[in-house]
Amino acid sequence: MARLTLPVHLRWGDLDAYGHVNNAAMLTLLEEVRIEAFWRHPDADAPQHPTAVLDAGPGADLATLVARQEVEYLAPLGYSRSGVTVEMWIGRLGGASIDVCYEVRNGSTVCARAATTVVLVDAATGQPTRLGEAERAAWEPYVEAPITFRHR
Amino acid sequence: MARLTLPVHLRWGDLDAYGHVNNAAMLTLLEEVRIEAFWRHPDADAPQHPTAVLDAGPGADLATLVARQEVEYLAPLGYSRSGVTVEMWIGRLGGASIDVCYEVRNGSTVCARAATTVVLVDAATGQPTRLGEAERAAWEPYVEAPITFRHR
Amino acid sequence: MARLTLPVHLRWGDLDAYGHVNNAAMLTLLEEVRIEAFWRHPDADAPQHPTAVLDAGPGADLATLVARQEVEYLAPLGYSRSGVTVEMWIGRLGGASIDVCYEVRNGSTVCARAATTVVLVDAATGQPTRLGEAERAAWEPYVEAPITFRHR
Amino acid sequence: MARLTLPVHLRWGDLDAYGHVNNAAMLTLLEEVRIEAFWRHPDADAPQHPTAVLDAGPGADLATLVARQEVEYLAPLGYSRSGVTVEMWIGRLGGASIDVCYEVRNGSTVCARAATTVVLVDAATGQPTRLGEAERAAWEPYVEAPITFRHR
Repeated sequence: MARLTLPVHLRWGDLDAYGHVNNAAMLTLLEEVRIEAFWRHPDADAPQHPTAVLDAGPGADLATLVARQEVEYLAPLGYSRSGVTVEMWIGRLGGASIDVCYEVRNGSTVCARAATTVVLVDAATGQPTRLGEAERAAWEPYVEAPITFRHR
Repeated sequence: MARLTLPVHLRWGDLDAYGHVNNAAMLTLLEEVRIEAFWRHPDADAPQHPTAVLDAGPGADLATLVARQEVEYLAPLGYSRSGVTVEMWIGRLGGASIDVCYEVRNGSTVCARAATTVVLVDAATGQPTRLGEAERAAWEPYVEAPITFRHR
Repeated sequence: MARLTLPVHLRWGDLDAYGHVNNAAMLTLLEEVRIEAFWRHPDADAPQHPTAVLDAGPGADLATLVARQEVEYLAPLGYSRSGVTVEMWIGRLGGASIDVCYEVRNGSTVCARAATTVVLVDAATGQPTRLGEAERAAWEPYVEAPITFRHR
Repeated sequence: MARLTLPVHLRWGDLDAYGHVNNAAMLTLLEEVRIEAFWRHPDADAPQHPTAVLDAGPGADLATLVARQEVEYLAPLGYSRSGVTVEMWIGRLGGASIDVCYEVRNGSTVCARAATTVVLVDAATGQPTRLGEAERAAWEPYVEAPITFRHR
């Protein structure tokens, strides 16, 4: 019954010629906060979220695959160098996958709502791998009802 | 009752460190085929699809906003310099918006299925704008049943 | 006779399929630190560098054009979520342009050395515009000898 | 004493909020034409350039590293869906590296001039590897005087 709130750092290059964060760049932002929240930080001394327990970076035994993604773009997100945050929670904690839910906020405006299904796989074989006890324990406090999309 | 089939050109930079087209880069590919299919080509002499009737590029009176997007990633798409195609159709032809549906194929493998809701807006005000007769006439032949996602 | 040292935040998407920050993504990182260092922060209350005096973001009267860029990639930069910094200084303070010099460091390893010529232009006409007194005063303390490239 | 001329396909996402191909995206375009020109096409049946003899893609024994890059941006490159071409030649054919030279043209306008030093390395060890006879034979016809930059 808790959410993670992470600041997200826009880049000038995330904007397209319309002057807004491009629809694909939005997914890159979600990927960044997802990695920040769930992958173990390669630098052991760095501060990290209690949820950052997954060894899925370069050279790790596990990898994460995105199986599904859904995004509602509710308000254009213009250039900003502070004040953009992502609120995240887990909408479903499955056997070998999780559904991550997000609200992207620029100040008090919700710019986007999204959900990503992430599957844990063996890096060598690509086969789905069950979540371990450590992941389950770290992630259960952040399970909430999945996001409800307005336009389906 | 027709679909458009467009080749899509992968870039080396679309791959991430896992060696597959990144989940966000997939949306960039869809954006490219959507623009190729629906925006009027700025070079009047260039060959273009009969559906390319929309003036929505830089400096135009209209712009297109992505309101919603849904993607199922069915098979990792590795590096390929030919053979990737996108099959597109219109799942809903609304008053000021359309739902574009896609299947991304690498040879005979369907790598992704997706749908995008695109809203037509006035470039100056950002207000939704109704589709004109020319757009309606050009696009109606490509209306089919909307894509059915497997995992919702 | 001073340099600015800015942390730079890598993204997973900056890596290419070789597992290193891609050569083009390196320029995006330099662009980010350059904007952080020289553009006035749109949020007036945010902490900013004393050099961040330029109004060149969306909607501003001025814009910045990159006229020239030179990069030496000295060591591959792998995935890292902390410890990457850019040391910056001004190698030439011209009438309407500056040469920005950089060393990109991962811990104590210099991964890249680079220089960018940035021209100040009028956003409406694209014509070069002379640096004002405020820019000159803010930037002069950071003028040092230009970078010397090893392989020319 | 010959040059290769390759069309280059801009993407909408190559533009930044100034409405021009971003300075970093320009390097992505150069990377694409370089790969098209020099890497052996993974699909053996596809038409390819006589210079495309290098096995450097995913899973190959060789890899290519960019050691150095220099770009002059001579004219902003706006949105275009045809007519952009890159003229390429080899400015230096070294023991384990080559200097690739480019002119990026939009119609008759030269938008950018650039040079890239590419080093051939062993994919497993990262150590420089000498060019083989096949590469040398395929590339020698395209050796010309290196590009002369105007502003150094």
